[in-house]
Amino acid sequence: MKEELSFEEIPGGVCAPQGFKASGVACGIKGEGELDLAVVLSEKPAAVAGVFTTNRVKAAPVIITQERVKKGHAQAVVINSGIANVVTGGKGMEDAKAMTAAVAGNVGLDNEGVLVCSTGITGKFLPMEKVIEGIDEICQSIDSKGNLEAAKAIMTTDSVPKESATEIDLGPGKVRIGGMAKGAGMIHPRLATMLSVVTTDAMFNPVQLTVWLSAAAEWSFNRISVDGETSTNDTVLLLANGAAWEGEPELSQEDEGLFFEGLCWVLANLAMSIVEDGEGTTKVVKVVVKGALTDADAVAMARSVANSNLVKCMLFGEQLVWGRLVQAAGASGAEIAIEKFSLSVGEELILKEGRLLSFDANRVDEYMKRDSLEIQFDLGIGDGSGYILGTDLTYDYVKLNAKKET
Amino acid sequence: MKEELSFEEIPGGVCAPQGFKASGVACGIKGEGELDLAVVLSEKPAAVAGVFTTNRVKAAPVIITQERVKKGHAQAVVINSGIANVVTGGKGMEDAKAMTAAVAGNVGLDNEGVLVCSTGITGKFLPMEKVIEGIDEICQSIDSKGNLEAAKAIMTTDSVPKESATEIDLGPGKVRIGGMAKGAGMIHPRLATMLSVVTTDAMFNPVQLTVWLSAAAEWSFNRISVDGETSTNDTVLLLANGAAWEGEPELSQEDEGLFFEGLCWVLANLAMSIVEDGEGTTKVVKVVVKGALTDADAVAMARSVANSNLVKCMLFGEQLVWGRLVQAAGASGAEIAIEKFSLSVGEELILKEGRLLSFDANRVDEYMKRDSLEIQFDLGIGDGSGYILGTDLTYDYVKLNAKKET
Repeated sequence: MKEELSFEEIPGGVCAPQGFKASGVACGIKGEGELDLAVVLSEKPAAVAGVFTTNRVKAAPVIITQERVKKGHAQAVVINSGIANVVTGGKGMEDAKAMTAAVAGNVGLDNEGVLVCSTGITGKFLPMEKVIEGIDEICQSIDSKGNLEAAKAIMTTDSVPKESATEIDLGPGKVRIGGMAKGAGMIHPRLATMLSVVTTDAMFNPVQLTVWLSAAAEWSFNRISVDGETSTNDTVLLLANGAAWEGEPELSQEDEGLFFEGLCWVLANLAMSIVEDGEGTTKVVKVVVKGALTDADAVAMARSVANSNLVKCMLFGEQLVWGRLVQAAGASGAEIAIEKFSLSVGEELILKEGRLLSFDANRVDEYMKRDSLEIQFDLGIGDGSGYILGTDLTYDYVKLNAKKET
Repeated sequence: MKEELSFEEIPGGVCAPQGFKASGVACGIKGEGELDLAVVLSEKPAAVAGVFTTNRVKAAPVIITQERVKKGHAQAVVINSGIANVVTGGKGMEDAKAMTAAVAGNVGLDNEGVLVCSTGITGKFLPMEKVIEGIDEICQSIDSKGNLEAAKAIMTTDSVPKESATEIDLGPGKVRIGGMAKGAGMIHPRLATMLSVVTTDAMFNPVQLTVWLSAAAEWSFNRISVDGETSTNDTVLLLANGAAWEGEPELSQEDEGLFFEGLCWVLANLAMSIVEDGEGTTKVVKVVVKGALTDADAVAMARSVANSNLVKCMLFGEQLVWGRLVQAAGASGAEIAIEKFSLSVGEELILKEGRLLSFDANRVDEYMKRDSLEIQFDLGIGDGSGYILGTDLTYDYVKLNAKKET
């Protein structure tokens, strides 16, 4: 994804844009001094947009945050890791609201101006006394250099914190976009929740932000697939505080397009860092489909191939079984014409217009040993294209997920 | 499934109904004297119905058989194992047609009256000389006792042949339904093709047969899930030759209902034998959903849970992580109201109307060690119900599927 857009990485994560502060503390949800509570705060009221899990079971914080985001404005996000606050009933809702009230009280906001996210194990209640103390502590220490602590505090089974930021030169001046994310990859005996908070010191209205965030998330987070699971807590939030500008300058279409591309670039970096951090995985595969009847068909086929357990085991085994790729592609339901159907693995063309070629098996075997692979289908029947980033399926995935959640 | 209908198993498989012959030989596709070619033959023209893979990539024999079944009548089925004859282009089509022509020539039928199925590895051409010799050999030896050889000859990675038959007393007299199936379960480095041929000496018109076969397959083969893969070759054929009756007697609605139940029973037995034979699996799980808004919602949720890798790993690990069940259920997209959502594992109620109960963890741990488990969701919002039979995900699945197809 990254290579298709060219922006420069700058330091600072969610604090890279002007007027944003962040911090993370160890409040005792996880124990042993592990960071488990984060706050991101905008100095000024910010326009806000969110995309949320499509799971019909939603965690308490998702329900509350989704409702508040509809108002279009917010100024802070509080996030805990360790406990997901899901299937926790009325008490879970009260706890999530109490977290937002504690932030609001500390920094002088309306409760409604604070959003909340949780990630971790299911069916447990939050230790609210510790959480409230932690929030008080964060609000004392929060500053414009706390992005890394915040990024660390939202990790669950992540092995590294995930941040990205960039600066874009638009007509009315330079603006920045920064973000952090956590993603358990595929592996841990917890729900593979993906959370991300993205900030910008540009200003747009919430409707415009929502359109861009939805499209950018579709093009980044929705293009990664580790085990086809959809968490009850997945959330991506975008806060735009306008601190880079005086007033609300008019942007040209070019500037708007550039901002959207920058947003895509930051989200794509974060998404890629989630795939690459999939514990128990040994490979990242990009499944590309072109020549499909529609883009939707192309993405559906790419997803079907990337999610296929038989394909994933084949990747782990490092030997091409092209029949599985054809089978998984066909199972997607996307329109095909077999006599126009072509398949490449890396640079090697395997099937051309429905016929098996006498490809160089040794070269393919070598290619299959890479950490990062590309599998390309050309359906030859239209202009639709799309891709999905996936991983392999390993002994470690089964081993780690056959352990009991604690 | 089986327990919900009560019929008695009789011997004879596809030869149990009158007027059907079968046989299987080793023609050399697999090598080492393994049975790999079967023919099922009706002495009289039979009405025929078929259900086929929904994969957009269809093997040559599927394309031909699907076309011929539309005519509503057929008299023989020839099946090979070892090579799937898929992605084999024009030559594959010619080969499949040649197989039917060889049977037709031997037994004095039109080519169009012979159906053809293949199962095995992809992208290879059939050794047609051997296949034609084998067909000649079968047509010499075929008789009304060859059902077991036929059932063995269609096996690929199956560890046992799969047959079922029963007798039903209808108004105009007794009729029989018999069938054979092959299913690789989930495991082997080939496509997990499911094939089944079902015979009956009752007579119905092809449209009626098609309605019943579709419904019965939906209720049996479509309720088993091993790894969510859909083969390019899946085929279920039903031949009804009317040999049990003089003429075409009128049946009462009760008799028709009884016949349909018998058909469901035979197909359900065959489907269950496929799940139980899943190599590399250690457990069979029945995921039941009731109280859903619609039956379709119930089946979708059951399928989402049964297909979830996190759930499958949990089953293998023999310890309940109920959050995964809730997550996989919610991810199905089926309508739920969390305050009415209940979950049981075996007899133990875990969640009742959205609240976590203090269940007996020791008793649940004991239950999780069983080979056969039931997980039940009660959504409490409607009358829709459904279930899916699934399996666990094991080291052996990854191990065997990470090997190269040969």
